[in-house]
Amino acid sequence: MAGNSFGKKFVITTFGESHGKAIGGIIDGCPSNITLDLEAIQDELKRRKPGQSKLVTQRKEEDEVIFLSGIFEGKTLGTPIAFQIMNTNSKSNDYDLLKDACRPSHADYVYQQKYKHRDYRGGGRSSARETAARVVAGAIAKQIIKPVEIQAYVSSVGSISVSKKYTELDLSLTETNAVRCPDIETALQMEQLILQTKKKGNTVGGIITCVIKNVPVGLGEPVFDRLEANLAKAMLSINACKGFSLGSGFEGTKMFGSQHNDYYNADGTTKTNFSGGIQGGISNGMDIYFDVAFKPVATLLQPQEMLISGGTLKTIQGKGRHDACVLPRAVPIVEAMAALVLVDFMV
Amino acid sequence: MAGNSFGKKFVITTFGESHGKAIGGIIDGCPSNITLDLEAIQDELKRRKPGQSKLVTQRKEEDEVIFLSGIFEGKTLGTPIAFQIMNTNSKSNDYDLLKDACRPSHADYVYQQKYKHRDYRGGGRSSARETAARVVAGAIAKQIIKPVEIQAYVSSVGSISVSKKYTELDLSLTETNAVRCPDIETALQMEQLILQTKKKGNTVGGIITCVIKNVPVGLGEPVFDRLEANLAKAMLSINACKGFSLGSGFEGTKMFGSQHNDYYNADGTTKTNFSGGIQGGISNGMDIYFDVAFKPVATLLQPQEMLISGGTLKTIQGKGRHDACVLPRAVPIVEAMAALVLVDFMV
Amino acid sequence: MAGNSFGKKFVITTFGESHGKAIGGIIDGCPSNITLDLEAIQDELKRRKPGQSKLVTQRKEEDEVIFLSGIFEGKTLGTPIAFQIMNTNSKSNDYDLLKDACRPSHADYVYQQKYKHRDYRGGGRSSARETAARVVAGAIAKQIIKPVEIQAYVSSVGSISVSKKYTELDLSLTETNAVRCPDIETALQMEQLILQTKKKGNTVGGIITCVIKNVPVGLGEPVFDRLEANLAKAMLSINACKGFSLGSGFEGTKMFGSQHNDYYNADGTTKTNFSGGIQGGISNGMDIYFDVAFKPVATLLQPQEMLISGGTLKTIQGKGRHDACVLPRAVPIVEAMAALVLVDFMV
Amino acid sequence: MAGNSFGKKFVITTFGESHGKAIGGIIDGCPSNITLDLEAIQDELKRRKPGQSKLVTQRKEEDEVIFLSGIFEGKTLGTPIAFQIMNTNSKSNDYDLLKDACRPSHADYVYQQKYKHRDYRGGGRSSARETAARVVAGAIAKQIIKPVEIQAYVSSVGSISVSKKYTELDLSLTETNAVRCPDIETALQMEQLILQTKKKGNTVGGIITCVIKNVPVGLGEPVFDRLEANLAKAMLSINACKGFSLGSGFEGTKMFGSQHNDYYNADGTTKTNFSGGIQGGISNGMDIYFDVAFKPVATLLQPQEMLISGGTLKTIQGKGRHDACVLPRAVPIVEAMAALVLVDFMV
Repeated sequence: MAGNSFGKKFVITTFGESHGKAIGGIIDGCPSNITLDLEAIQDELKRRKPGQSKLVTQRKEEDEVIFLSGIFEGKTLGTPIAFQIMNTNSKSNDYDLLKDACRPSHADYVYQQKYKHRDYRGGGRSSARETAARVVAGAIAKQIIKPVEIQAYVSSVGSISVSKKYTELDLSLTETNAVRCPDIETALQMEQLILQTKKKGNTVGGIITCVIKNVPVGLGEPVFDRLEANLAKAMLSINACKGFSLGSGFEGTKMFGSQHNDYYNADGTTKTNFSGGIQGGISNGMDIYFDVAFKPVATLLQPQEMLISGGTLKTIQGKGRHDACVLPRAVPIVEAMAALVLVDFMV
Repeated sequence: MAGNSFGKKFVITTFGESHGKAIGGIIDGCPSNITLDLEAIQDELKRRKPGQSKLVTQRKEEDEVIFLSGIFEGKTLGTPIAFQIMNTNSKSNDYDLLKDACRPSHADYVYQQKYKHRDYRGGGRSSARETAARVVAGAIAKQIIKPVEIQAYVSSVGSISVSKKYTELDLSLTETNAVRCPDIETALQMEQLILQTKKKGNTVGGIITCVIKNVPVGLGEPVFDRLEANLAKAMLSINACKGFSLGSGFEGTKMFGSQHNDYYNADGTTKTNFSGGIQGGISNGMDIYFDVAFKPVATLLQPQEMLISGGTLKTIQGKGRHDACVLPRAVPIVEAMAALVLVDFMV
Repeated sequence: MAGNSFGKKFVITTFGESHGKAIGGIIDGCPSNITLDLEAIQDELKRRKPGQSKLVTQRKEEDEVIFLSGIFEGKTLGTPIAFQIMNTNSKSNDYDLLKDACRPSHADYVYQQKYKHRDYRGGGRSSARETAARVVAGAIAKQIIKPVEIQAYVSSVGSISVSKKYTELDLSLTETNAVRCPDIETALQMEQLILQTKKKGNTVGGIITCVIKNVPVGLGEPVFDRLEANLAKAMLSINACKGFSLGSGFEGTKMFGSQHNDYYNADGTTKTNFSGGIQGGISNGMDIYFDVAFKPVATLLQPQEMLISGGTLKTIQGKGRHDACVLPRAVPIVEAMAALVLVDFMV
Repeated sequence: MAGNSFGKKFVITTFGESHGKAIGGIIDGCPSNITLDLEAIQDELKRRKPGQSKLVTQRKEEDEVIFLSGIFEGKTLGTPIAFQIMNTNSKSNDYDLLKDACRPSHADYVYQQKYKHRDYRGGGRSSARETAARVVAGAIAKQIIKPVEIQAYVSSVGSISVSKKYTELDLSLTETNAVRCPDIETALQMEQLILQTKKKGNTVGGIITCVIKNVPVGLGEPVFDRLEANLAKAMLSINACKGFSLGSGFEGTKMFGSQHNDYYNADGTTKTNFSGGIQGGISNGMDIYFDVAFKPVATLLQPQEMLISGGTLKTIQGKGRHDACVLPRAVPIVEAMAALVLVDFMV
């Protein structure tokens, strides 16, 4: 069954295996006659790409996006926008050792069981490399939904958390450090934790907080396509994501209704915003904010016991490069998916 | 834009306003020649219906489901299964006071802004009454996906939580108390908290944990229709839901990869299950388990300031009946939505 | 696999077997705050209903539509509009003889093979009775797409054809006779042919021509959801339909491009309209017109050889009532389906 | 609104403008572990490509398909299959004259009105060049649906028609001549007509008949996704297509039911096949056959009056190359679309 498309009106379909010829996608449903800032799209890819700092995986990929259709004389045609990013750094030989191995907490085993044939090189389709295509589509979406503004940041790495709420932070500081955490002091601690973890060939998880401002009232469709339902799906479709919470989230479950209810001002805004900008599945014009939980990624540069085809277990040393913490690179992915959710209700 | 359908192959579309003639739905894509246990469907409705215990709202609704099509001589025809539940207890007059009022943290305001015309009686379409239709569809789905077994329970109410993991609990005790918590001692505390809260006309939130056993390997479609992405959407589409977390969830973000990775046994099962039964978006055959956060519902029997059409604020006393805690009644809804996610990958 | 829905934005899902409790449907995606003329909807059903004249089947069905949701104080809510029509005249006993029989050119055989279980009474789901639900949805669509005007008429019955083009006819005469043919003289001949055919317990086919005026420029989506592609699908989804042709259609294949090309006037209209109002899949503002072919329906009141379960052949006398020619009753169905195609591009 | 995808389970999305960088597509939902004959795919493209004979347009395009994903070690992965065909022969300058001109019966005008911005070079997205992507997808579908066999042929060009039914022809002769007509004598006449028409810079229409053999019983989904409804949509989505008729089609409307009904043999086959292999929307195992009408294409190498932006009319001489008759090249397109309809019900 097909499952590589997202959206109903602004539909992105992605393709590509980690070590195939290319990854990319098609956007169907993009409005016509919109001037696209192609450089801004490439900039978003740079925020996601490997090797951007000492914190992240050093796989060298230029990740240059090429557009094949749908844009003419700098403006969208209203026809499908196809794009691709070549896989330039695909040393497949590195993976020969893993040909018959199922790495723990990877998709190797379930892909083998489900498809009976898999591209074992670097995770194939299950690789997070696929998310580069989402970032391209999201970057286009961001331009279309303006003046809606989406800003995500790393709010925790392992046990180190930003203690302030997003409203107390200066989000413009997010891009000033490699961790992408706007609380500079905490960012430094996070950085150290990541580097220590990296040295051990280990990985660590964390949380990304995403804030959306200038949202018009009325986005979202009851009852199944509620705005928060689509956001949750979007986030949980990102590799390594294990949780989503909107507004007061899990903490809000401890509150009483009299505390949690967001009382109105006369202009329709609310005094508090425990709801996280969505009521009854529809945006109410207040900031939308939510948390996204990421597990520590499964690729370790340590010896690990793996399941070998035929049913034996074997300890194999992890090789090559790895992301000790994906959170910094996941920030633009979270933003892209949020943009794709919103644009689908706005075109 | 249409948004009242869920699923791609086993598609449920629901309809109905809280105080209209009826609520109900159509299931399209149900396999043919399956003997349905209609009583079991009605039993699920009983688990959701108001007035089932002193803990929940006392609105008197028989909630008897009537099937109009798709079933012949006790077996499914493979054609659409239409069903309806009449709204028998719809005293609309109760709501005249609220005709022009937008209650805090309700959908009144956003519906008015989005649709310019709304059924103000009892929340109209935004009422949780709509979920009765989901329970019917889910009850059918449950019968189709056997032997997959879905069991949800209340794991926290306000600040009172079950401290044990699901693996340490006897889930068969869930239905032995009105709270639907299998940890009997904790259930008693929860019950007291709910009754106290009810007495004050207040409400309290909580968390439902859902466990799915006997799951075949291979459910879920990369990359956007991952099993956990669809589960997240399903849960966040339930009224008052504010969060979803799979397996180790938000807690798992604090772990290192070497701790979090689920190592294999020779038969393909894993020694631990931090992944929550899903890897790479596809079920791996281990138990699936997840938490669902519910805010305290917004309907209070207290005086509350409301926004009146035209832009004035007015304090109005809440009237009638209310659910001090929706968690007990939400248990079958969570199960139903989980069943609908699974069946879509299994038909 | 689900297949009972039509449309992407204005989605109609229908349900119901010929002799079940009811038929009906849900419209999801209808815009809000539109005043509906409910009488006009019922009037469309009268144009389709059995027993309306001596020409058509005499099955007595009141076909009164009941709305269950989505309409409040006479206006649409933007929520799903559910409706149903009870099956009041369902003498199932009439069909006991046919329980194990597959009638020639009916769906009995393929339903039995595909579903392994079928409602043999009156064709079950394959009965044209299902189209009453389409007429309801189409009648609502017609009100939404105004001032677009859809007028269908019977242009041939058996070998008797209207020789004039639609532009030479006064389409307001269509409803003045039971055949629904605006060419009165031809209508009389058609009527005689139908009555003669009826007397013999036989049936006869024919062609319906449909004309759509006041169409805005720009409806239709390249490349697969071309307006004519959706119209073709809509028409071929009607029972007994065997063909669709747009504009010059099959006759136009004999022409040369220099004859067939529609040259422009300075205002963007065209001097001729061989294209039938659609170019490149998109409406160009000229009249859309197309022909729809209907085979003679398969239900005869004659002895016919049928296939009996287990693989024997048996001649059985057709009983009860039948439509000697469905064309008059199919006129509102063709219009309804055309309206559903258009509305999907207009909401 | 997105409209460039076809299918529900085996979904093809195409992209590309005639004179952009490339055309291509993504297939989502292709089963895994299937060995693909890539040469057979390229062979189908050769049947569609320009310059293959003196009858067709001489635009020189190699039309070599490149696969970017979804295939590994010669077998499908179950992941999206992305492919592209570069536009190598795109002399855009040829089209500068047409920059502001709307050619008669082309999509220029409606694209300009709908999108406000269009790629005027060679028709852009509305060019039939897009169908090359369909041929690739269809060629893959053909391999998956085996042993179902799809054979289309040219049954009329202008007023010259094959008088025999498909059952009286040797369809293996179709590829022996440039017209793709299995009736050799008629093929010669058609060829002469096409060459004469070409010499005049004119075009001529025609009809393609398509026959599908070895169809399993049970394909098609009532009520809207009937097999014939999806076939009709598929065919009418092809450029220049104006009509579709199944089995007895428009001729069958003149018959009586007693003549038209297909009586059974004891094994479930039928003695006649006026139904065209489909009853009640579902395949019955008999041959499926249908006709597809193509208008004479609109591109002429003659002086023609065109609409110029701003609302003036101007006569411009057609330049370059053209297809005097698209029928021969449309044969593989019809087959491809038929394959895409079938595969969607078979995976």
